[in-house]
Parts: sequence; C-alpha cells; structure tokens
Amino acid sequence: MIGGGQLGRMLAWAGLPLGLDFVFLDPSADSPASAFGPVIVAPFEDREAVFKLAGAVDVVTYEFENLAAHLLREVAAARLVLPPPLALEVSQDRLLEKQLFQKLGVPTTRFVPVSGRDDLEAAVATTGLPAVLKTRRFGYDGRGQAVAGDAALLDAAFQRLMGAPGGLILENHVSFERELSLIACRDRAAEIRFYPLAENVHQQGILRSSRVPADVDAEVSRAAMGYARSLLTHLDYVGVLAIEFFLKNGKLIANEMAPRVHNTGHWSIEAAETSQFENHLRAITGLPLGETRLRGEALLVNAVGRLPEIHPLLELPGVHFHDYRKAPRPARKVGHVTALAASAAELEKVMPKLLVQMPFETVS
Amino acid sequence: MIGGGQLGRMLAWAGLPLGLDFVFLDPSADSPASAFGPVIVAPFEDREAVFKLAGAVDVVTYEFENLAAHLLREVAAARLVLPPPLALEVSQDRLLEKQLFQKLGVPTTRFVPVSGRDDLEAAVATTGLPAVLKTRRFGYDGRGQAVAGDAALLDAAFQRLMGAPGGLILENHVSFERELSLIACRDRAAEIRFYPLAENVHQQGILRSSRVPADVDAEVSRAAMGYARSLLTHLDYVGVLAIEFFLKNGKLIANEMAPRVHNTGHWSIEAAETSQFENHLRAITGLPLGETRLRGEALLVNAVGRLPEIHPLLELPGVHFHDYRKAPRPARKVGHVTALAASAAELEKVMPKLLVQMPFETVS
Repeated sequence: MIGGGQLGRMLAWAGLPLGLDFVFLDPSADSPASAFGPVIVAPFEDREAVFKLAGAVDVVTYEFENLAAHLLREVAAARLVLPPPLALEVSQDRLLEKQLFQKLGVPTTRFVPVSGRDDLEAAVATTGLPAVLKTRRFGYDGRGQAVAGDAALLDAAFQRLMGAPGGLILENHVSFERELSLIACRDRAAEIRFYPLAENVHQQGILRSSRVPADVDAEVSRAAMGYARSLLTHLDYVGVLAIEFFLKNGKLIANEMAPRVHNTGHWSIEAAETSQFENHLRAITGLPLGETRLRGEALLVNAVGRLPEIHPLLELPGVHFHDYRKAPRPARKVGHVTALAASAAELEKVMPKLLVQMPFETVS
Repeated sequence: MIGGGQLGRMLAWAGLPLGLDFVFLDPSADSPASAFGPVIVAPFEDREAVFKLAGAVDVVTYEFENLAAHLLREVAAARLVLPPPLALEVSQDRLLEKQLFQKLGVPTTRFVPVSGRDDLEAAVATTGLPAVLKTRRFGYDGRGQAVAGDAALLDAAFQRLMGAPGGLILENHVSFERELSLIACRDRAAEIRFYPLAENVHQQGILRSSRVPADVDAEVSRAAMGYARSLLTHLDYVGVLAIEFFLKNGKLIANEMAPRVHNTGHWSIEAAETSQFENHLRAITGLPLGETRLRGEALLVNAVGRLPEIHPLLELPGVHFHDYRKAPRPARKVGHVTALAASAAELEKVMPKLLVQMPFETVS
C-alpha cells in the first residue's frame, strides 16, 4: 500500500481477518497504518522505494491520489497495480477528470482550462459568474481553490494560484442544494456493486458528516449508479471508486472522483454488510465482492483538530469510535464516529447529542 | 494481555479503533496476536515476565484460563487485573466452579470430588451412571475427561486420568437435548448486559458451530440471565463472562463458565451492535458497555484442522471470514466464518452451502 494514513490504517484493519499481510510506503515511520505492517519510510516519489514495495507484495494499491502516476505505470509493468494507474491519472487532474465525465455523458459543471491571465476573460464567458478557480492538481479539503463573484476577485484568485504546477481550471460555481456521494466497487471479474448514496455536509471545505441512506428519489440513485458504471467500465477499474455529486434542481452534477476508499464511506464499517475497506481488498486480491446492503440508518461525523472525550460518546446507543492515532492539529481529521440506528427517527434522537460532542477545530 | 492466541488477536483487533495499545505475554513470538503489539516471549508462569507485562500497561487481562492464578493475585496488588483473579480461580477448577453454581442456586449436574480409587464407588452412588470423570483442572476441547457407562469403564478412566494435577471430579453424565451458551458482560460501574443465547454444536468435544438467536422460550433466556447476573455480581466481575448450559426437559443445567471472550460468541463481530471483544475491552478500560442487540440471524462455523478455500466461501451472501494465522494442525481451530442474514429462512438457505465447505479435521 502506498500511503500509511487513516485510509491505509482502516484498509489494513479490514484485511487482517481475511489473512492478508500489508507493507506500507510512507514518509513517516509512525503513520496511522504503521501498527499493521512494516513501513518502507521514503517519499512517495522515491522510485527505488516504490519498486522495493512492489517487490515485497502480490498487488500494489494506494490510499491517496497525490502520487507520481508515471511511477505507478512503470511498476504496473512488473506487478499488479490496482486501481489501474489510468484512474489515478484522471482523478489527479481536474481537467482530465471533467473531460472524462463529459465524454461518458456524466453531467458536470461548465469548465475551461486556464493557461494564463489572458485566458480568464474568455473562460468566464463560458463558465459564467460566480466561478471557481482551481489548481488542476493537488487540491484536497478545499485547498487550492477560490470562489470569485466578479472579475476583480477572479484576478486576485489567479494571482494567488497561478504558480501551481499543472495549471488551473475555471469552473462554474454550482449553487447546489445538497452534496451526495456514491461509493462503488468493481472486482477483477468485472462484477460491480454500489453502496447507497450518502448525503454529506462540508464545513470550510472539510467533511463534517455523512449520512446514509440519503433521502433521494430512486431516479437519482439510479442515475448515480449509471454514471459510476460508465466510469468503472471505461477505466477497467478494480477496487473502490468514490464519486462526489452536487444535487441541484433534482439533478446530479458530478464534482469529482477519488480512486480509493473515501471518507464519505467510513460508515460502511458498521452500517453495511461489508465495509468499503473490505470490498476494496476483496476486489484487488481477486476475491468476490461482499454485499453492500445497509444494516440500518447511519451518520458518520469526523473529529477535526482533536479527538472527542470517548466516555460520554460511547454512552450514546449505536455509537462506534475510530481513533486514527494522529497527533491533534487544526483542520486535521484525527478520528470519526459512526452512529447506527434501526430507523431514521432513532438516529435523529442520537444525532444532536453526538454532534455537540464532536470537535471541529480548524484554527489554533 | 496474557496470552496471544486467536482470542487475543480478535480482542486487539477490536481495540485498535478505540485507540488502545496492547502488549502480550505469550510463549511464542509469532502467536496470532503478535501482529497487534509487542510480545513478551515467556512461559505464562514466568513471574518476572508477568510483572514486566503489568509494568507496561494500565490494565492486565487474559485470554485463556490455564494461568497461575496466584501470580495474577500478586499482580493485582500492584495493577488492575480484570476479570478479577477470583473468577479465574473458580473457573479453572471444575469443583470450585460447580460448588459456586450450587451456592448461588445455578442448577448444575450432580458432582463429587474424587481423591482416590477408593472414592469411586461412593461417588457413583451420588452421580449415577453413566458418569463423566474429569480432571478438575486444565481441561479444554473435551480433553481430560471420559464418559463411563459402567464400573469397569469408570475404573479404566480413573487409571488414565488419576495422575492429573489438581485431582478429579465425577459428574453425572447429562444426556442433554441441546447446548446453549450465554455471553454476559459487566463494566466497572456494575452495569450488566447480555447477548442473546446461542445454540452450539460440538463434535468430538470441539465447537463446530454456534447459532444466534437460539430458538428457546423467553423463560429459558430469563433464567440464563438470572444465573449469569448472580455469578457476575458475586464475583464482582468486570469483562465478558461466558456460561455454557445444557438444556434438558426445558430446563437449564450450567456446565461450565469461562472468564473471557468465548468461541460461542465470535458471531458478535458482525451480528451484534457491539462485539464481545469490544465490550470486554470497554468494560476493563472503564468505558460504558455497547449495545448487544443482534443485527440479524447468524451462524458461526469453526475451521478445524485447516482453513477452507476463501473464494467460494465469500461468494455466499453475508459470509465473513476470520483467519487466525495459525499453522494447520489436526483438531486445531485455525479460523472461523460467520454468516449473517436478515431472517432465519435466509440463513438456512446459506447454511448447507457454508457447512459443506468448512474443514473439520481432527486426525492427520
């Protein structure tokens, strides 16, 4: 596994009962995943280290996107790399990603690549205002982007972001009503399964909570699954793929995808028959996928900045705690909890008591 | 944790999301639990090693019974040891255990301690025939006991077992109809919770399968919980306690108890809101207990002697796999699977396909 963060930690945790062994590549010797196997301590772009990892395992996977895709391609010639490097390349570049959405008929917002300041005016003519200027690469948790309501603000955003490697993209700013995400998985035999759509709440660009099942029309779910199926098939994808959507006027607009297990699917550990982590591992190791049906209604809440007090949390019925073993730091996700209940009404009784206890600290 | 077997492995696995750290004491450096924390490699009776373990942790627990209870008592003067050493002492001696059952009004079979051959005749007069001659200590998986239908067979059993440390006990052989077990837990605030009764099938003295919820009258469940409550309270117990019962003519007969998580409760990982492993850890670390309600109907099946093929197993709906990472060996439990279904009818569709795939090898 390339990366040893909390996603790597939860993947390995899910894989141990299956009898799997893990080796990690991470710049830190004491990353969250380090409790679950040996760590090759090196930068992600260290070619020798990546090949050392590949030599130690049967299949290489990764737990985040900001990797050197060309290195993965090289490794893939010698060792199974899943999800396929193409999926990584597409998802780590907002322009390629939106172009693929467009090509496959997956609705997305209007977008234009921006190479220099001279492009801005023409770009705005396409996207309209307000618009979002984003770096094409290396954005996460709301970083590397700025919303601009007029030309002056857009210019300021351009001044701030223009040095970014990989260039910029201007998108129409979608004043969406709701945020949804779909966790999908495809195995080596091309079997596809979907988890129910989740509804997500972001604050300051950071995921605060995720609830399943999202209360949406069956038509919306069917559409989301159709889009995911197109992407999975086109990419000959193996593993878990997450797609984030906006919902506006009852229609889905694909925002981005991630070629990995996803924060908006962490509730699946307790709330689904098989977790997204186990299904990712089943897929990439050639095992059949497990069922994705829900065991109830669930809410995931991130602990941002620091962990909550565990004792009062665990007094709440159906609440499960996940400590990532990360040092507290503003805006950092250091753990999460999932509340599982037999009905929406039961869940909604727990929710306020849960939310009030969960830290969300983004500044020190 | 004293002991690093599969119970220690599953306990540690359950404790990692809670942010707990584990240190193990085990004679083997590569025991099943060794993936989850450092191991002090030493015999269980090594006083220095046990104190070294105690010095490294906040609370000492144990994952099996064949320990030197006097050592635990010594340690308990310096460090929290849970479940309390008294519970260990009682459960590792069949005579003390049955005497406690008797004292607390928990129905058990007729029994008589046997010190020498001269006691046999009088003992049989009390227990009747057939009787079971057992070593008072160190029995497990049907070892250290023999059923005898007449005086000659009883004499032969005595010749075989008489050298056992701790002496012998003769019990009436209960020709029971069904085997049940209750997993109970009590936390440091004296709160008690019960899992639903499980129905168990043993073959050659080894647990083959365990199904929940057992199909029994509410009266039987209530009685079992009452007996467990008496035992937990009397022992000032903290942690998970398992009690095995026979059911005969609609009445419970307590057979034995184990002061630890129990093989007949492994289904709780997937089938209960909180697993027996997590609840044991919550209890001993001073956290509140989690809910014990079932998420469906479940069947646990042990893999005895060797592991099954994983691929066809995971094609069955609701089936979850647990590899203990133990070398295959006749009669050794090397893993288990749990099938979880929404209804008994659904579970019963999966059961035959599951059972036929699960190895049960007791001789090489």
